[in-house]
Amino acid sequence: MARQLYELCGDDAQRVFSPYCWRSRMALAHKGLEFESIPWRFTEGESLAFASHDKVPVLVDGATVVPDSWAIAKYLDTAYPDAPSLLHGNPAPYRFVSAWNDAVLQSGIARLIVSDVPPMLGEAARAYFVESREKRFGMPLAQVTADREAKLPAFRQTLQPIRSALAGEDFLGGKQPDYADYVLFGSFMWARVVSPLKLLEADDVLHAWQERLLDMHSAAARLTPEFAA
Amino acid sequence: MARQLYELCGDDAQRVFSPYCWRSRMALAHKGLEFESIPWRFTEGESLAFASHDKVPVLVDGATVVPDSWAIAKYLDTAYPDAPSLLHGNPAPYRFVSAWNDAVLQSGIARLIVSDVPPMLGEAARAYFVESREKRFGMPLAQVTADREAKLPAFRQTLQPIRSALAGEDFLGGKQPDYADYVLFGSFMWARVVSPLKLLEADDVLHAWQERLLDMHSAAARLTPEFAA
Repeated sequence: MARQLYELCGDDAQRVFSPYCWRSRMALAHKGLEFESIPWRFTEGESLAFASHDKVPVLVDGATVVPDSWAIAKYLDTAYPDAPSLLHGNPAPYRFVSAWNDAVLQSGIARLIVSDVPPMLGEAARAYFVESREKRFGMPLAQVTADREAKLPAFRQTLQPIRSALAGEDFLGGKQPDYADYVLFGSFMWARVVSPLKLLEADDVLHAWQERLLDMHSAAARLTPEFAA
Repeated sequence: MARQLYELCGDDAQRVFSPYCWRSRMALAHKGLEFESIPWRFTEGESLAFASHDKVPVLVDGATVVPDSWAIAKYLDTAYPDAPSLLHGNPAPYRFVSAWNDAVLQSGIARLIVSDVPPMLGEAARAYFVESREKRFGMPLAQVTADREAKLPAFRQTLQPIRSALAGEDFLGGKQPDYADYVLFGSFMWARVVSPLKLLEADDVLHAWQERLLDMHSAAARLTPEFAA
């Protein structure tokens, strides 16, 4: 196949878990574009030298190489203008959604689940991950996520902007999802793939939103196994 | 003049302070549309009966009456398509910016400055404001804002998504501001008009962003007096 997406995965190549890779996965599905997933693991930076990059996702679309999830979203809208739009010709406000995701949602999820990541990694990736993340947090990962059940209510409170923005619509994009949905959904998929912790209560409108996104595009996201102990 | 904007103000009609009214003010300026400001004060709900509404802003544009700042923004883009766009034909992602503003920025500012509002109001408006806000916060307003200097660092930390979204650009909208800028700027204008508290440090990129917005549209926002003790 001429289209490939390099994606971060666990020792098991099925367990694609990077929130950034999930953005690109869903963006490709949104466009109706098939792709071959190329498993990539931490410490394999040199295998992306062809892209002059050292992180995933990297999209290879025929002769075009596009690193970085944000660049991929813009590329897909430009290269496939007749397929449903991701950014509707105006990327600017999606930068804010993405900035909020990174500063609040994704970093909030990290503090709840980061200790669940090492067990799913192979040996070299695990050593890299534990060392780099312990350095970032300044403590052992088990300590970062200690008492996490008790921290869930405060985390769920930080999600209020998403609930308000939905305002009775099915998706942030309205009747159909757009890139704002995929950015936030990507963070939730990360947790779903790596952790037994249930971030959302069953009666949260965000739970229903997440289920709708899991069902989108022939339920593409459901093909990736949910965490199972 | 055929175009009027009903706006919340203090006892002094110049002191327009509602963040929602500021959104509409800036939206009109963005479109290059002149308007007459009609002062409106808390407890004057019945004077908006013509709009079947009891809150400001209300825009009267010739024969068209548009209540609610969000409806006004959409109306202006529809009615004046040749003027610079506010929502770029896709309001959806601006709903998230607005939801975040209301849940985090505006409510964070309220906890820092709400006690500064009563002194600028006339007697009836003051009584209404104090009673309704003390009920909302469950405590005297002076207690809400107690030790506010000490709370500023945590407040400033919550602004990180705006800083990241700017990403070196002049405005959230890019080279020119758009409705995302005006929503957030409206909250800062509220504080600027009613409070001596300086929310932003001089070396914060958000301070420079705010100054640029104060300069926009012939420095329209600077015509409203900043708080002076």
